[in-house]
Amino acid sequence: MRRQAFVGGTVIDGTSRAPLSDAVVLVEDDRVAAVTTDRNAIPADAAVVDATGRWIVPGLMDANVHLVAAKTPTLLAEFEGRYDELVEEAAGIALRAGITTVFDTWGPLDALIAVRDRIARGEVVGSRVFVAGNIVGLDGPLSGDFWANENPLDPATAARIDAAYAQGVGSDLLRRTPDEVRRRVREYIERSGVDFIKYAGSGHDQPRFLTFTAEVQRAIVEEAHRAGITAQAHTTTVESLRMEIEAGADILQHGDMTGDEPIPDATIAAIVERDLPIAAFVHITDRFLAWVHAEGPPLLRELYTPVLVANQRRLIAAGARLILMTDGSARGPRLHRDPLYSSRVSPVDFPWQLGESHHLWLETAGERGMAPMDVLRGATSHIADAYGVGAEIGTIEPGKRADLLLLDADPLADPRAYRRISAIVKDGAVVDRDALPVRRVLTEEDPHA
Amino acid sequence: MRRQAFVGGTVIDGTSRAPLSDAVVLVEDDRVAAVTTDRNAIPADAAVVDATGRWIVPGLMDANVHLVAAKTPTLLAEFEGRYDELVEEAAGIALRAGITTVFDTWGPLDALIAVRDRIARGEVVGSRVFVAGNIVGLDGPLSGDFWANENPLDPATAARIDAAYAQGVGSDLLRRTPDEVRRRVREYIERSGVDFIKYAGSGHDQPRFLTFTAEVQRAIVEEAHRAGITAQAHTTTVESLRMEIEAGADILQHGDMTGDEPIPDATIAAIVERDLPIAAFVHITDRFLAWVHAEGPPLLRELYTPVLVANQRRLIAAGARLILMTDGSARGPRLHRDPLYSSRVSPVDFPWQLGESHHLWLETAGERGMAPMDVLRGATSHIADAYGVGAEIGTIEPGKRADLLLLDADPLADPRAYRRISAIVKDGAVVDRDALPVRRVLTEEDPHA
Amino acid sequence: MRRQAFVGGTVIDGTSRAPLSDAVVLVEDDRVAAVTTDRNAIPADAAVVDATGRWIVPGLMDANVHLVAAKTPTLLAEFEGRYDELVEEAAGIALRAGITTVFDTWGPLDALIAVRDRIARGEVVGSRVFVAGNIVGLDGPLSGDFWANENPLDPATAARIDAAYAQGVGSDLLRRTPDEVRRRVREYIERSGVDFIKYAGSGHDQPRFLTFTAEVQRAIVEEAHRAGITAQAHTTTVESLRMEIEAGADILQHGDMTGDEPIPDATIAAIVERDLPIAAFVHITDRFLAWVHAEGPPLLRELYTPVLVANQRRLIAAGARLILMTDGSARGPRLHRDPLYSSRVSPVDFPWQLGESHHLWLETAGERGMAPMDVLRGATSHIADAYGVGAEIGTIEPGKRADLLLLDADPLADPRAYRRISAIVKDGAVVDRDALPVRRVLTEEDPHA
Amino acid sequence: MRRQAFVGGTVIDGTSRAPLSDAVVLVEDDRVAAVTTDRNAIPADAAVVDATGRWIVPGLMDANVHLVAAKTPTLLAEFEGRYDELVEEAAGIALRAGITTVFDTWGPLDALIAVRDRIARGEVVGSRVFVAGNIVGLDGPLSGDFWANENPLDPATAARIDAAYAQGVGSDLLRRTPDEVRRRVREYIERSGVDFIKYAGSGHDQPRFLTFTAEVQRAIVEEAHRAGITAQAHTTTVESLRMEIEAGADILQHGDMTGDEPIPDATIAAIVERDLPIAAFVHITDRFLAWVHAEGPPLLRELYTPVLVANQRRLIAAGARLILMTDGSARGPRLHRDPLYSSRVSPVDFPWQLGESHHLWLETAGERGMAPMDVLRGATSHIADAYGVGAEIGTIEPGKRADLLLLDADPLADPRAYRRISAIVKDGAVVDRDALPVRRVLTEEDPHA
Repeated sequence: MRRQAFVGGTVIDGTSRAPLSDAVVLVEDDRVAAVTTDRNAIPADAAVVDATGRWIVPGLMDANVHLVAAKTPTLLAEFEGRYDELVEEAAGIALRAGITTVFDTWGPLDALIAVRDRIARGEVVGSRVFVAGNIVGLDGPLSGDFWANENPLDPATAARIDAAYAQGVGSDLLRRTPDEVRRRVREYIERSGVDFIKYAGSGHDQPRFLTFTAEVQRAIVEEAHRAGITAQAHTTTVESLRMEIEAGADILQHGDMTGDEPIPDATIAAIVERDLPIAAFVHITDRFLAWVHAEGPPLLRELYTPVLVANQRRLIAAGARLILMTDGSARGPRLHRDPLYSSRVSPVDFPWQLGESHHLWLETAGERGMAPMDVLRGATSHIADAYGVGAEIGTIEPGKRADLLLLDADPLADPRAYRRISAIVKDGAVVDRDALPVRRVLTEEDPHA
Repeated sequence: MRRQAFVGGTVIDGTSRAPLSDAVVLVEDDRVAAVTTDRNAIPADAAVVDATGRWIVPGLMDANVHLVAAKTPTLLAEFEGRYDELVEEAAGIALRAGITTVFDTWGPLDALIAVRDRIARGEVVGSRVFVAGNIVGLDGPLSGDFWANENPLDPATAARIDAAYAQGVGSDLLRRTPDEVRRRVREYIERSGVDFIKYAGSGHDQPRFLTFTAEVQRAIVEEAHRAGITAQAHTTTVESLRMEIEAGADILQHGDMTGDEPIPDATIAAIVERDLPIAAFVHITDRFLAWVHAEGPPLLRELYTPVLVANQRRLIAAGARLILMTDGSARGPRLHRDPLYSSRVSPVDFPWQLGESHHLWLETAGERGMAPMDVLRGATSHIADAYGVGAEIGTIEPGKRADLLLLDADPLADPRAYRRISAIVKDGAVVDRDALPVRRVLTEEDPHA
Repeated sequence: MRRQAFVGGTVIDGTSRAPLSDAVVLVEDDRVAAVTTDRNAIPADAAVVDATGRWIVPGLMDANVHLVAAKTPTLLAEFEGRYDELVEEAAGIALRAGITTVFDTWGPLDALIAVRDRIARGEVVGSRVFVAGNIVGLDGPLSGDFWANENPLDPATAARIDAAYAQGVGSDLLRRTPDEVRRRVREYIERSGVDFIKYAGSGHDQPRFLTFTAEVQRAIVEEAHRAGITAQAHTTTVESLRMEIEAGADILQHGDMTGDEPIPDATIAAIVERDLPIAAFVHITDRFLAWVHAEGPPLLRELYTPVLVANQRRLIAAGARLILMTDGSARGPRLHRDPLYSSRVSPVDFPWQLGESHHLWLETAGERGMAPMDVLRGATSHIADAYGVGAEIGTIEPGKRADLLLLDADPLADPRAYRRISAIVKDGAVVDRDALPVRRVLTEEDPHA
Repeated sequence: MRRQAFVGGTVIDGTSRAPLSDAVVLVEDDRVAAVTTDRNAIPADAAVVDATGRWIVPGLMDANVHLVAAKTPTLLAEFEGRYDELVEEAAGIALRAGITTVFDTWGPLDALIAVRDRIARGEVVGSRVFVAGNIVGLDGPLSGDFWANENPLDPATAARIDAAYAQGVGSDLLRRTPDEVRRRVREYIERSGVDFIKYAGSGHDQPRFLTFTAEVQRAIVEEAHRAGITAQAHTTTVESLRMEIEAGADILQHGDMTGDEPIPDATIAAIVERDLPIAAFVHITDRFLAWVHAEGPPLLRELYTPVLVANQRRLIAAGARLILMTDGSARGPRLHRDPLYSSRVSPVDFPWQLGESHHLWLETAGERGMAPMDVLRGATSHIADAYGVGAEIGTIEPGKRADLLLLDADPLADPRAYRRISAIVKDGAVVDRDALPVRRVLTEEDPHA
């Protein structure tokens, strides 16, 4: 057994406990063995790491990323067959930023599952990955649900790529009975090996529409629970949000996004009473909103409104639990050169850059009303609990996986401290940040990354 | 008082009563006064019409028409400001075909209301018109709900035309709370003077999507009922159909249309138990279906499938009440020359021609399993009852408006008899068929009409 | 036309307007014609009433009374055939106390309708009466829903009395389909001539049970609305309350009563958002509660708990609209001598005495958090609006019925002022209080009345 | 390993396969190893049992029994502390009758769990037992839900006995929010070790009332599924049945019982489409019904009606899956001497006798429309599948537990053959029928047993 002791730092462990100064964090292999102030507890054979002057927090998490960044038709075609390389690159970028766990909520199933397992087996270095695969009820990225009107690819290529995403649980389900959807979702969970389910409660590029009836939504949630995993819902309107809550969804993915209609008080009260986690667009800054409404495309103007910010403030004031997400991907020059994509790029506070945009979240959350300890938990233990994996990760407690960040400043005093990383530990091993990502694919020559 | 007696014909009165031969139908002003075999009942001052050898049936109805036929952007712009001329023309075409009453389920409100009232006051000759105005929840014809991707008009013109249709109860409602939708629908009903409400239970050009939650649908239906009118629902999937039934919709508009998913038995049983009228695409013939699946555009292939026909047969066998609709409009050379429109025109059994396609319905219904008397009632009294106006029209009974067709053959023996019109009586007055439509607008030089 | 002018008083008109001092209230026949400070507006032929030093408020209302006080089997049998005498007496007692309108929410239909109409025609002097008849879904007073285990009457008598209450819409409906309940309720409304519907959302003597499914409740509410009347729901648990709100009930009758389970925040938020009136047991004082839990019977202990009071405070703080009700009846020595009844009589703050207990409500409301103006409106205009009759009664405004109280003190300063009645005006006529009730029946020799 | 071969019989294996004559059933230890006609497959070391002239069917099951027969207050008190003796006796009686598995749907938890485990460990001989414990939402046998008005016990004893049944998931749950019920049910499942959940969708002695809202029912079902077990619902009205189906209940316990209101066609269609098992009162014979309506008590008259039989016929004709249940208990002289109990004893076709009444079911099912093979499966594999244990028991297939009946006659030809038991095999061991029950407790001197 390999033992390490991180000695002398201030531990903020991701629970509601007060910070523990001059602490000893004992790690055995890939797990935390003890958190104490008793230096006699350090075994003789432990490798000692001096953490004096550091703050030790749990490894960060991002509750909504898309590791395959090839969001445009051209790039999806160019990288077809090599999506796993993109996933590996992105997982490396995330880990370099201190994000030890990511939840990929939409992407090509096979590549994601493959890289998830390579990382878990230690063959590849990157963030731990949890995979949803397709958004149940929506088709692939080249379909009418996403880029349909701007797709320059030949139909056969587009159909092949879309099928790799849709995995048999795409928009065809909207035409089926509750029993048939139940059967298809059950089959998908069993066959695919996904870690959680994400379903569409409303449309993506048609955000005003609903997708599934209450009965169907309940069937989807039940099938996820029957398989012992969580089900989250994509939401864009006040009514889709309400339906999803009533259907028993475990996480409301961007549950703060309701166009220009404020969330009704009764819905906020229901969220608080059920203690439902909201993966929230807290990193949408006022400056980004100003750009959207001055120069952004219509769909962004419909989705990102001042009501989003007001919803966040009201949710926080009412005691709702907001968790960190960025909806982020790796970015690189090839992506930015694609005209379809570049029309959505803001000159300020760009919110969808994996490894960077989470700082916007951490630094904006205070302005929106979150206490510093809630910000920390919203980026760590609250995410783990939301996904039902809080027994494994999310806090620095005995028995948990040893995912740690050593920071040079106190993140409770100033959230910019999350940028001042002294060391990253994942599964008990110190990460060699400079070696990440191992191989640049999309981000080569990228001045932004 | 003006008295007429139609003497010697066989009356099939639109109820379940057996035909009455050698009958006397006594009409006083615009109402039926008596139906009898007693010739002594004929007042001395009555004008006698010899109906020997004729079959007298109630005036036909069409439960779903669109009197403004200008379905394409180009024509909508060309006729802007003159939609009332199109409505007048279409109402004349319908009446000439023996359709004494039409229910316009979508169109520009002001023109429809204006012509409805002109006809009611006797200023214009045409079918009696009942008006829904907009389909609640959908936007105008140039919006994303209909022709969005093919709209060549300038944005200001398109917005103006769309607003004339949407009337404040368009797709914006999909983003609102149940209470707000209720308020807006109430206001619409009060302000507009519509005769019934049609709402979207699912999308039009996006037929797989749902629109409103169960709570919102109930609010819409309740507001219609509170105002004493009926609410019908546009349906395209098995789940939208089920939701609409549970919401209390009074008529299922094309409730037989569920893509390629058969209506579940439980839903058919619910329809039968509640005695809900289905305005059904019975006039979609097998030949038309063959054309659609060989040459038709994708949206038609999605909506018009063999399941549609199977649904009809199962509904009829279970005892459901199917009513006649065509979704029809006047057709003319200008429409057919428009490439957007012509792509949807079938060379056989074209189903959407006002004044003609209803014969396809009457002549196909038997093949689908309807008894001749149910066909007759499905085109007359069952429609009137479905719309809650059965106390006024739909049968030949004392007190009802005198809307009669005199046919040269027995429609119960052969439905082609509905083409053999000897005379049309509307509101007690014999219609001068040759004078209709009074003015040709769209149909000028039309070889089809 | 008969004209009166009430001159010099301070008018608190039941709207949110500030009190108007030195006012002139002009009454023409039975209606208010004007409220002004302009003495020139007084017509020459008007009878002038000096109201100097008085406060003029709208006639009070009680949103929940039972005019037939014969609550025990023995008395129900004794007075059978003479219930109308009890109703007349009770309506007189209420009017003498300044309650110009009462809403009878459960009682024998025929007697109530008869007296309601006698009072409306001016043949009998008493409060204006609105009648619900039976509580839909519950049986009569001698059934298992009320006194079943303590009923000493012979079965035939009990069945006859129960049927006079149940009116075909009793507990048998709990066994039926939504469509059948709808049919039966519609028939009941049409036949009975009731002014509003009250239905059971949960049991009465079995308050933990639910009665109707969501579908049935909606059918009942829809039928009331279709007939242009309101539907209220009897509620006893948090879940029955939530169901009733979702079913669209117009008033929650004792919606503050949820046993020992506090109303969830989401339910309170829903009440506030829909602006739903709660007829609340505000007159249940802390002293009465102490008696119940020290000496009261089990059913009272289950229903009347400290949570009731806490619910009221939270509802008021959230902005909900509480309206006055007493659940009161006339009381008299015969009733008190009945051992079944006397076990429920508290020595302090007895809450169910018609004509008296409403003062407990008015005087306790402030302690529970209501502003004086909300107390006044909760006893007048808010009740009228809740019952959909706010265009006729509830405020002192032109066109409304002239129901006025002249008080000797300012009720906004001290609610005990409602006891200091100088004069009562109903339908424009000054009431001879000393003559009421016209005939004593139940209250003869009653020291409490 | 111990090997046996049952040779020469006709195997009806509980699937839809045709009977296999001259068969070899190979048993290894407690499992079926093979079913074949190849005698070469018999291992040399196998003990051979000659089954020539026998029919071999799966061990029977009863989907609804109550092993603690002490149904009256007096007996419940007398046997307190010794309920396990009653359970052991009853499990022996059932096994003697060929019922190798029973599902106890209501009883005192601790005694049932204890005996279930003793039997599973081989310490006690009796039917395999699956346990529900309490009916969620109802209180114990001495509460108002069952014998309240006839309970002669002192309050402390009654409360103790009731608590042993209610287990914290009694009628108090009816007063709680969905979230609280969910928490309590989850805690109950985790703590109690029950094999399945039964909840009340409606009352027991108050069968017209509903218990839980749709939201609560769904929470209960979800918690059962989350724990990997099934949830069944107690039903007594058409609406409770419909709610339970919509809530996702896995079995409708007496789903054929809807008082005097026939199950609507739509509900039957929903049952068939979801392939929901109905544990049905098929053993209620016409003769028993005649007795109930001539001499039975009111509650029996309300529940057992001719509609019950008509429901069964319609369900069977529509293709629903009916499974065998008796609601039975052991009977003995002590029980029959108790006047409370004896009032419910019919002189003919008594339906609630464990070990006997299942023959009424098997012999009546044909009259109600079931095919002989469906009768067999309704008493074996369909029950196992309904309870989610079809991978272990219910058919004679390789890998399944070896529960076999050897019959002297063909049960597909005449269901009375189920009475002609030649041998019973449970878990691979031949049962010594004459030794059962091991100890008589309640049935001592019982002339009926």
